[in-house]
Amino acid sequence: MKFLRVAFPLLLLAASLCFSAVAEKLIHALRPQFGCAGTGLNLTGVSCTSWQLAVETHNLRDWPSVPTACESYFGNYMLGGHYRNDSRVVVDEAIKYALDFKSSSPRGIDIWIFDIDETSLSNLPYLSQHGFGVEPINHVLFAEWILKGSAPPLPETLKLYNVLIKLGIKVVFLSDRTEKFSASTAQNLKRAGYHTWHKLILRNPKTNGTELQHKSDVRDMLQRNEYRIVGNIGDQWSDILGSPEGERTFKLPDPMYYIS
Amino acid sequence: MKFLRVAFPLLLLAASLCFSAVAEKLIHALRPQFGCAGTGLNLTGVSCTSWQLAVETHNLRDWPSVPTACESYFGNYMLGGHYRNDSRVVVDEAIKYALDFKSSSPRGIDIWIFDIDETSLSNLPYLSQHGFGVEPINHVLFAEWILKGSAPPLPETLKLYNVLIKLGIKVVFLSDRTEKFSASTAQNLKRAGYHTWHKLILRNPKTNGTELQHKSDVRDMLQRNEYRIVGNIGDQWSDILGSPEGERTFKLPDPMYYIS
Repeated sequence: MKFLRVAFPLLLLAASLCFSAVAEKLIHALRPQFGCAGTGLNLTGVSCTSWQLAVETHNLRDWPSVPTACESYFGNYMLGGHYRNDSRVVVDEAIKYALDFKSSSPRGIDIWIFDIDETSLSNLPYLSQHGFGVEPINHVLFAEWILKGSAPPLPETLKLYNVLIKLGIKVVFLSDRTEKFSASTAQNLKRAGYHTWHKLILRNPKTNGTELQHKSDVRDMLQRNEYRIVGNIGDQWSDILGSPEGERTFKLPDPMYYIS
Repeated sequence: MKFLRVAFPLLLLAASLCFSAVAEKLIHALRPQFGCAGTGLNLTGVSCTSWQLAVETHNLRDWPSVPTACESYFGNYMLGGHYRNDSRVVVDEAIKYALDFKSSSPRGIDIWIFDIDETSLSNLPYLSQHGFGVEPINHVLFAEWILKGSAPPLPETLKLYNVLIKLGIKVVFLSDRTEKFSASTAQNLKRAGYHTWHKLILRNPKTNGTELQHKSDVRDMLQRNEYRIVGNIGDQWSDILGSPEGERTFKLPDPMYYIS
């Protein structure tokens, strides 16, 4: 695997400098190293950390794939403790917000919108075999992967899910996966620990327009049907931008692909 | 200075690992070290890099000050090459967008909104003396600093400004500085290299509400007066959220304070 060949000497150095948290077995079974993603600088002078920040803050948009020179940086970022730490801060804030919110007066049915890929489920077992976003998505191979229904959960998101279920906030999964993946997606969610949900809304392949528009339209429909969207969490800006956004939005990290 | 005492041994280590770009003399006259902001992990187990990403992506809101344990991390981040590199990627994208935009058909007077503090002008000479955001802002001392009118420009923003002026896109400075700072702000902008502008809009101290609401109201007023807001750049989410946002927004990094 190219990533391992290129990155291994760097990883040994990084291991001596960085702390890596103890993490869930499913995602971390993939982990080839300790590491905090190194310095994020590569030999051609491109700063992968600056590229990453610009992506996560939505300054860079519509990029087709991860810069080739950043493959080992993002491999290390995703499989070391760094991605988990970044996700943890977001989810801890979401949980704090949800606990506070419960004291507000009820208005309709309280729901929380969860995106699926790279939010509720992780495709890292697939993406780690395909350059962590350096290779543009191969839709045939990716469909085969989804149909297996074996993606692990993002452990932080599962923690938020369990808190919300206990609080009585209903969960709505809203995804750009098309409806032909309904059965495998439902099976995968249950297998990953998401035992119950209020709705699982996948995309009708006949709908046109961007994902941002599609998700915004669905949220609008839900709100007109007496639902109150307490929170909305996703890894893409298209999951959380577009009116109505929900009472509060949470953006998980994802440096591997962009969906408009 | 506490930052130097704590950080110096770490900085020597970081200097051997990281690249620091050659940078403008005004900001970098302050620079006490080479560095890429180290690993971003401190001794208490808090990850300053994860905190920073959550701030920059607007997952953490209304935080009163930078975590004390992150003072040396952010000192190094701001004064080393890392902050400049992060800003450069944002501004390069803004320039690319502006050059593309010029081919679109005219509609009203084209303007670009610039925030002032930590966007057009840098208060680093002040903030570096006050813990890089660890100390909450002292409004008396900060007012004295502003009245001096000696803040340097953010070099990347000045580069964008010069491109826009050449393209014939007019510049509007819009700030939460109150009108009592009009003269010193205008003098400071000119001294920093911003030689001309279409409007300089400061805040009437009698207006209530958040900065987000204030800036949104001003943009709405401008749009109703036949202006087309081509772009909008700021370091705070309150600079760029709130309808109308402008045709496109750009978020510069700022881990040192939060304005709602």
